[in-house]
Amino acid sequence: MSQNTTTTSAPTPCDLLVQADVAVTQDDTRRVILNAGVAVTNGIVVGVGDHDDLCAQYEPGTSLDLSGTMLMPGLVNGHTHLPMTLFRGFADDMPLMEWLEEHIWPVEFQLTDELLTIGANLGCAEFIRTGCTSFLNSYMHEHVTGEIVSLAGLRVVLGEGFFSFPSPLFPTAEECWQTIRELSQRYSDNPCIRTAVTPHAAFTVTPDELVASFELATELDVIWQIHLAESETETAICLDRYGKRPIELLHAHGLLTGRTTLHHCVDITDEEIEILADTGVNVVHNPASNLKLCSGISPVQKMLDAGVIVGLGTDGASSNNQLNMFRDMALAALIGKVRHEDASAVSAQSALDMATRGSARCLGWPELGRIEVGCPADMIALDLSTPNLMPAYNYISHAVYGATGMEVCMTMVGGKILYLYGDFRTMDMKAMRTEALLASKWVLSKAKK
Amino acid sequence: MSQNTTTTSAPTPCDLLVQADVAVTQDDTRRVILNAGVAVTNGIVVGVGDHDDLCAQYEPGTSLDLSGTMLMPGLVNGHTHLPMTLFRGFADDMPLMEWLEEHIWPVEFQLTDELLTIGANLGCAEFIRTGCTSFLNSYMHEHVTGEIVSLAGLRVVLGEGFFSFPSPLFPTAEECWQTIRELSQRYSDNPCIRTAVTPHAAFTVTPDELVASFELATELDVIWQIHLAESETETAICLDRYGKRPIELLHAHGLLTGRTTLHHCVDITDEEIEILADTGVNVVHNPASNLKLCSGISPVQKMLDAGVIVGLGTDGASSNNQLNMFRDMALAALIGKVRHEDASAVSAQSALDMATRGSARCLGWPELGRIEVGCPADMIALDLSTPNLMPAYNYISHAVYGATGMEVCMTMVGGKILYLYGDFRTMDMKAMRTEALLASKWVLSKAKK
Repeated sequence: MSQNTTTTSAPTPCDLLVQADVAVTQDDTRRVILNAGVAVTNGIVVGVGDHDDLCAQYEPGTSLDLSGTMLMPGLVNGHTHLPMTLFRGFADDMPLMEWLEEHIWPVEFQLTDELLTIGANLGCAEFIRTGCTSFLNSYMHEHVTGEIVSLAGLRVVLGEGFFSFPSPLFPTAEECWQTIRELSQRYSDNPCIRTAVTPHAAFTVTPDELVASFELATELDVIWQIHLAESETETAICLDRYGKRPIELLHAHGLLTGRTTLHHCVDITDEEIEILADTGVNVVHNPASNLKLCSGISPVQKMLDAGVIVGLGTDGASSNNQLNMFRDMALAALIGKVRHEDASAVSAQSALDMATRGSARCLGWPELGRIEVGCPADMIALDLSTPNLMPAYNYISHAVYGATGMEVCMTMVGGKILYLYGDFRTMDMKAMRTEALLASKWVLSKAKK
Repeated sequence: MSQNTTTTSAPTPCDLLVQADVAVTQDDTRRVILNAGVAVTNGIVVGVGDHDDLCAQYEPGTSLDLSGTMLMPGLVNGHTHLPMTLFRGFADDMPLMEWLEEHIWPVEFQLTDELLTIGANLGCAEFIRTGCTSFLNSYMHEHVTGEIVSLAGLRVVLGEGFFSFPSPLFPTAEECWQTIRELSQRYSDNPCIRTAVTPHAAFTVTPDELVASFELATELDVIWQIHLAESETETAICLDRYGKRPIELLHAHGLLTGRTTLHHCVDITDEEIEILADTGVNVVHNPASNLKLCSGISPVQKMLDAGVIVGLGTDGASSNNQLNMFRDMALAALIGKVRHEDASAVSAQSALDMATRGSARCLGWPELGRIEVGCPADMIALDLSTPNLMPAYNYISHAVYGATGMEVCMTMVGGKILYLYGDFRTMDMKAMRTEALLASKWVLSKAKK
């Protein structure tokens, strides 16, 4: 026991004291604590350390014994489109444009709030099951996602997406901005929901509207996120239309700042990486989606070496097909080595950093993704009794290379348990399969024949 | 109901009738059957079809209701080193030779039968948990693995490995061959265990001994397997030593035949792929291991297009770090697209074919990897109520892209249930964690300081 347990002062009350075999804190020094304890009050971590020490320091209202497990910060998903779980496995093994134009868009533009609700519910269930506690979303009808995420008990940054061409929702981009203002207003007092300004891409939104939308983000003091440099095709379009590559284009318009989160950055040059580092931009890496749509492999280690903040995202379930951050962590580490021709590239610690602290920065919510005093108690536990987590030499390695995500046996957001050993506390899982069946029938009925 | 249920003949007795929402058969026409039934007698599939039809045709001794699940053939792992689960997460993020010479070999050469038993047990537990029912092994002390696999109830092809330089077990390669003969003899009546002849690699076994070992394989009528063309480093060694690339070397010695299974084939040319196709060689693709050790990405689609039989393997848990065929299926499909710059490359069906029928060919056991009348009843079921398998448009896509492997809720070999909804029927999972802890302490005590 450490010295501070020998004090004779009376124990401090706390709401909750969690015990686990080990805690991977992801704090500034990346402490890994054996016989770990975490004390929580009002949804905030108030103590992290040796469990015996914390027992002496705190008098908890509730004790949660997670012996046989490993605690980690809840994973932070830097890029997804939650309701697209509706399209999981609907169209595979084809390139981005064919997939979008022939299969996804024709159905997507007919989606109703009822369908969006089913998709968002399914996505939340998968996040909770696989230990993702917060995420940066971009889709349409974000008020639906907001309501569902709120009921599920997760955290989200809502990004109502827009194009410069007329979409089923918004005849012009500006008409989306009123929706963004309303979302921002509606959730201004909600500690779990924030908003973002979310132009779709540099080839679907004009430079003028990109600039105007960035001004809106500045006014609302929220992050500004965009799909960027996802593929060589996109680069070719930008070069053809504007004479500039995507990153050059944004840079020329002053859109690369600490408020900016770029999704993908697959087709980027070394010089562009320097620009990203110099401007303090945040980048979200989406390995599964980039592979599945054959976009390429992002030079993540080069970005990390240059000092760029890199987070990790699943993208939508339609191009992944999972919403499982554990899978994308492993993918990031595995393909990073081949991309950089270096077996030490994108180490397990780097991949875990991306999925926690890195993504938290990309969400503009840097206090997430770590178990640390003063930060929200968003935590997950992994059952160490599954064969694939034995024996244990290195818990970081286990989290990244060993785990499938289904070892998650507890998911907590702000001190509230959402999932515990098979029990979803905030979701009706029985209804889910019936709803999913309804949704698949609807989607098939709307698909291009 | 189909016509044959209207016959008035008395039902035929069968041992077992399994019911599931869907069966992905992997038979010659890749039938996917809704409301599926599979009848089993003496461990062999005797009927596959609509469950109602089978109910009319058969009078089962036991009925197994797996409603809410999807049946598939048990996955066939084309390449692994079972006891290396002992080294899961022991040394990550480093290249092949440093990893082998500095970390793995110094400990490996001190392994005792007790440690090998623990490693093999752990590996079997992970296979059973994640739906792998048979595998092609290569390691040392294969009699230990044989005993453990037999107790676990899985199928294996045992490959006692050898080098031309003295190893802790065999001063010369020839001395291993007596062990191989004994293994072959010991299991000659065992329907679940076969043997192989297993030289380590073209750079660790001399051409003369490769040829002599191939003659042994021919004499015993077993497959001959070898690590080959795994990396550019290996190619450089072979060129330097023999003036030939690895595949050229084997071809020059007549070692490329239908009896030959090559593991890896990452660094191969288009001309070499033609040679593999022409000679009827079987190749095992190991995507996770090739990525993690930074060996590269095998041109799998080119091989498939040329008509080469390709299976799928996890390799050992020390370079993966999972023994989860579902993860390697997804990896094969995902990285195959980037490798071939084609989003349709290595489709979900191709990846599933590799993990079932392809691997079965690589094991020299072609009746595995399919649910078909006359074939062994090696089957698994996936729980369709997990969020990541909803909604369902395409069950092949779900198996490859959607599943983590932990959705497996039933694993059966030869009609015998090894795992059912959390219950390991043949393994002592309580003892496993204690044994794994002992093993990790032992490994650390033997590690190079």
